[in-house]
Amino acid sequence: MYGDEWPLRVTGIASAAESEWRIGQQTPERTCEGWLLVYVKSGMVEELCDTHRVLLRAGQILFHQPAELFAMRAVGEVPPEVFRVEFTADGSAMDSFRSCHMRLGNAEKSCLRQLAETVREVFQPVQDACQMPTRRAEIPFGGKELQTIYLAQLLYLLARRRQRTRKQSPRARAEQEQAALVEACACTLRRTLKSRWRWT
Amino acid sequence: MYGDEWPLRVTGIASAAESEWRIGQQTPERTCEGWLLVYVKSGMVEELCDTHRVLLRAGQILFHQPAELFAMRAVGEVPPEVFRVEFTADGSAMDSFRSCHMRLGNAEKSCLRQLAETVREVFQPVQDACQMPTRRAEIPFGGKELQTIYLAQLLYLLARRRQRTRKQSPRARAEQEQAALVEACACTLRRTLKSRWRWT
Repeated sequence: MYGDEWPLRVTGIASAAESEWRIGQQTPERTCEGWLLVYVKSGMVEELCDTHRVLLRAGQILFHQPAELFAMRAVGEVPPEVFRVEFTADGSAMDSFRSCHMRLGNAEKSCLRQLAETVREVFQPVQDACQMPTRRAEIPFGGKELQTIYLAQLLYLLARRRQRTRKQSPRARAEQEQAALVEACACTLRRTLKSRWRWT
Repeated sequence: MYGDEWPLRVTGIASAAESEWRIGQQTPERTCEGWLLVYVKSGMVEELCDTHRVLLRAGQILFHQPAELFAMRAVGEVPPEVFRVEFTADGSAMDSFRSCHMRLGNAEKSCLRQLAETVREVFQPVQDACQMPTRRAEIPFGGKELQTIYLAQLLYLLARRRQRTRKQSPRARAEQEQAALVEACACTLRRTLKSRWRWT
């Protein structure tokens, strides 16, 4: 395991924090060193991704890729709670996270909750939401490793879902084509019946 | 991550299966090549561990260590459902799984359920419960890796619990000592009150 053949490997977690932001509060524009995961637990934030801006709502996750210019601004009506993780990773499957933002499913949310719990064991709480925290002096057994395991798990679940939505299996494609054919037949039949009804 | 400093690393999963056993059915005695995890989902089995036998009930997990002589026999009233994983692992924390059997907690059970789901993606179903299955020809993206991730997660959660029960923190020890002192005082007080009550 953990061999070079893995399509996706988390190689480190530089820092991670879950914090509440004041509305209007924002981070300075900065270039990503590694990857940055941003998950909005509640409320709404606006993310700068190089040149464009993305509005991120509760339950949505976004990834900033290495060397991307990024910033975050708390918007909306309620102070948003945001979970952020700065990490490094390699493997070809990381490509699916470039310019990626999506809504989390239940399994992914549960995995992210476990990740957030372990992050609290590893990193000190922050006073200012803009700052990223430093590591605790004493970390319980396996805290660092479990944190990496949960993040890897989340990335695999998300990459798997993105692969499923992008590349369809031949069977799914065939089923979709058949459904389209049936729908076209039904449409013709309806039209025929309708015109007959009118003219007979 | 996945560095040499990890206290516990899963290096491979040779085979894994969840199957129902007939009562009285048993495996031949065999020497473990790697580690063997045995989890009883329902019913009861008797495990041979070198020279002694362990009765394993529903919800309990047992680890056979490398080079251990082992066998399994389905006992009890209902045909047991058993989940078994043959794997290799290293790191100093694997020592805590030698001669280890314990009841799973809820978080561990949920992790094992995810592991069992992924195992079904990776390995073919078996006809004979005694046989260990072979790998599927086509495995969905990330199946092999997620399987390893879930097993590593389970091992960390269990190792963490075993460390907690074996080594107590100074604070927990102090609290326990204080509780014992309070109980001793209360006991003396009760005795004194009782004797006064009797003699006045």
